[in-house]
Amino acid sequence: MKKVPYRLYLTEDQMPKVWYNLRADMPEQPDPLLNPATGKPATLEELEQVFCTELAKQELDGKTRYFEIPEPVQEIYKQYRPSPLIRAYNLEKALDTPAKIYYKFEGNNTCGSHKVNSAVAQAYYAKQQGLKGLTTETGAGQWGSALSEACAYFGLPLTVYMVKVSYEQKPYRKAVMQTFGAEVIPSPSNTTNAGRAILEKDPTTGGSLGCAISEAVEKAVSTPGYRYVLGSVLNQVLLHQSIIGQEARIAMDLLDEYPDVVIGCAGGGSNLGGLIGPYMRDKLTGKANPRIVAVEPASCPSLTRGKYAYDYCDTGRITPLARMYTLGCGFIPSANHAGGLRYHGMSPILSKLYHDGYMEAVSVEQTKVFEAATMFARLETILPAPESAHAIRAAIDEALRCKESGEKKTILFGLTGTGFFDMAAYTRFNEGNMQDYIPSDEELQRSFDTLPEVPGLKD
Amino acid sequence: MKKVPYRLYLTEDQMPKVWYNLRADMPEQPDPLLNPATGKPATLEELEQVFCTELAKQELDGKTRYFEIPEPVQEIYKQYRPSPLIRAYNLEKALDTPAKIYYKFEGNNTCGSHKVNSAVAQAYYAKQQGLKGLTTETGAGQWGSALSEACAYFGLPLTVYMVKVSYEQKPYRKAVMQTFGAEVIPSPSNTTNAGRAILEKDPTTGGSLGCAISEAVEKAVSTPGYRYVLGSVLNQVLLHQSIIGQEARIAMDLLDEYPDVVIGCAGGGSNLGGLIGPYMRDKLTGKANPRIVAVEPASCPSLTRGKYAYDYCDTGRITPLARMYTLGCGFIPSANHAGGLRYHGMSPILSKLYHDGYMEAVSVEQTKVFEAATMFARLETILPAPESAHAIRAAIDEALRCKESGEKKTILFGLTGTGFFDMAAYTRFNEGNMQDYIPSDEELQRSFDTLPEVPGLKD
Repeated sequence: MKKVPYRLYLTEDQMPKVWYNLRADMPEQPDPLLNPATGKPATLEELEQVFCTELAKQELDGKTRYFEIPEPVQEIYKQYRPSPLIRAYNLEKALDTPAKIYYKFEGNNTCGSHKVNSAVAQAYYAKQQGLKGLTTETGAGQWGSALSEACAYFGLPLTVYMVKVSYEQKPYRKAVMQTFGAEVIPSPSNTTNAGRAILEKDPTTGGSLGCAISEAVEKAVSTPGYRYVLGSVLNQVLLHQSIIGQEARIAMDLLDEYPDVVIGCAGGGSNLGGLIGPYMRDKLTGKANPRIVAVEPASCPSLTRGKYAYDYCDTGRITPLARMYTLGCGFIPSANHAGGLRYHGMSPILSKLYHDGYMEAVSVEQTKVFEAATMFARLETILPAPESAHAIRAAIDEALRCKESGEKKTILFGLTGTGFFDMAAYTRFNEGNMQDYIPSDEELQRSFDTLPEVPGLKD
Repeated sequence: MKKVPYRLYLTEDQMPKVWYNLRADMPEQPDPLLNPATGKPATLEELEQVFCTELAKQELDGKTRYFEIPEPVQEIYKQYRPSPLIRAYNLEKALDTPAKIYYKFEGNNTCGSHKVNSAVAQAYYAKQQGLKGLTTETGAGQWGSALSEACAYFGLPLTVYMVKVSYEQKPYRKAVMQTFGAEVIPSPSNTTNAGRAILEKDPTTGGSLGCAISEAVEKAVSTPGYRYVLGSVLNQVLLHQSIIGQEARIAMDLLDEYPDVVIGCAGGGSNLGGLIGPYMRDKLTGKANPRIVAVEPASCPSLTRGKYAYDYCDTGRITPLARMYTLGCGFIPSANHAGGLRYHGMSPILSKLYHDGYMEAVSVEQTKVFEAATMFARLETILPAPESAHAIRAAIDEALRCKESGEKKTILFGLTGTGFFDMAAYTRFNEGNMQDYIPSDEELQRSFDTLPEVPGLKD
């Protein structure tokens, strides 16, 4: 019999009790968020108008290495975690590779993805602060589902602005949020000035994430006792998602395994930033030198083809400015089905690490991603989300290179969620109707032109 | 800190290596399947024309207490099992009950339900026998998804006849099966005589499970090297599903817990029959006396209002006759959304146990089931399938009775799967458009009139 199990679940006492803050070990800090009006670093006082106070503090804290996970958050983590570390024996066999492939699977929960790890933390802090409710936006719906679940748990009212075209095309995502008690409003709506202005211009618009963010923020700051929350990009979100990497590290250590390469899909960076924590720490502190690989869609290549510059986090240009790899906040991603990766920017932490040479990035085309997803489903009995399948694609490619070279590498990748709500995309692939899209240099240049000018700064 | 964890996962060496055959401990055997043409017990030779030989043997074997789980099937079980035993701390707290509530959750796999436990066994035996392919039917799609996954794993072609109305209304279920490589045909189709005959009569029919069974069986027996497989009702299916109950028993024993009452939803009986195994054994052998409760929809009440009689397993009247609790094979269940429970009959093993007083049965109305499902989702972070939620309803009712009486009962129930593909039903409930339906005595009498007359037998 095999010594290494298919799935390793930590016991409750093996589970991490702290979040790990990557910034504490970075030789250089990511550049601070800026107030676009003044060009000066955003202050706690400014941020806490929009975010929960405790979360705003976490956002600004680059020094504290470990944050204790509040007891009530640990309790919820125990309800759906630990997530298993899985050895992909069948995939290895089918690829005939000498490589060992492990993956950390975050889809064993109702929202079906890793998003809930930060959602429960954010809902908890909101409840602690005595807030009356939260607002957020959602596109593909994974974040909205996760936050709905978390708010239901804490009995906290939630308003979700859902991009109208998704609201109409993904009624089941909407139904999940409603089942958890959230109010779901198709955006643009007539519940905000921003929404009304857009509707006046174009009553038939399907909306956009940028517009939904504008509405959610406006609703939060104009409703007493409400705050706005976000599911990716921010430092606080990477902090909460560090639970993934820490569990993975403990499980790998139990198996006496150390990855030669750690792979994760990257949209805003919430999953990748959480997964790589303990291994990036080894790299930053000179203890080991594993490769860290971000995988992004060729249709939305912020790391591989973007600029490292100050930019708005939203297309509506209302958020603080973040220095990050970006395609320009005016970039409109093509209708790539991996909705969670269709984002013009990238977490400032990951952007800095990439800029300083601690990380690699590759981009992959959609049809190749779905080929990998289908192969994986048939072999590993998990039907992956298209976002997650970007990491599968890169892991398979790495394992195939090992086959050629004969190297017995250990590969660890993050499988962020399941594809239950993405079957329309699978159908397009199954029926041969899926196409790839790679933006031209001219198209990217046009969107770089949308980068804001910041007083006293150049990139 | 709590001593009992939220979730208990067995380690690989704690996992059962045998299936348990309830029949071996029954003082009286269930009545045998009959050949409807002769009225005589179906023989191995007759059954193996339709089913895999090994499965036909299991079907007829009432004596062997434990069947070793073939090594390759154990290997797949390790890929998605063990399923966790979960303590419903939050539900207990919200109900303010002195009862302890445990549930065994079978939804942590791509098909999203317990169905895959038997699907992998059946696909394995088919592969072993050197078959060229399998056929089956599916209504709601859980069984079809599970078998598609299992056949993909073993590289075995599969044709699924999917009730046409489901094929059209549930395109995502179809897409799951296709992603796993199955051929999915809307039934009735022009690929069989049965299908063509029905289409000739009514070209616009939406089909029925009875028709889909007829087509799947015809296709299997008329295609060289093919056999037909079924996901519930049969003795062999309960045998494979015994993995659920055995894992639950081992986990409960580790916690030093013994249930006062074991609760499961019951359609054809695959989940309930598997869940109760070790506890029913205690009851049959006089070692203990836990209550065993089957929960069925009030709209399709085979145990609580049916007759214990010989009947066809399908509405198309082509299968062997089984003695079971039945509403009559002509019973057309109302459009209850718990598709997996819309079956006129019940496993012959469970029917016999119920008839002999070893089991109780309750029926519950759909809106009450969805109330329980929604409450459970918000508290326990798992959005349950409507079928599974029948068991949740009964467990909550039991816990509330404990609150009244002050009894500290230990409740164990089976949570068979997730509701990701049932969000249309949740939407109807959320919007207040869900209705209950209870068949009248006259309606049941009309369907009892469809019971077949068997030469030399009376019920």
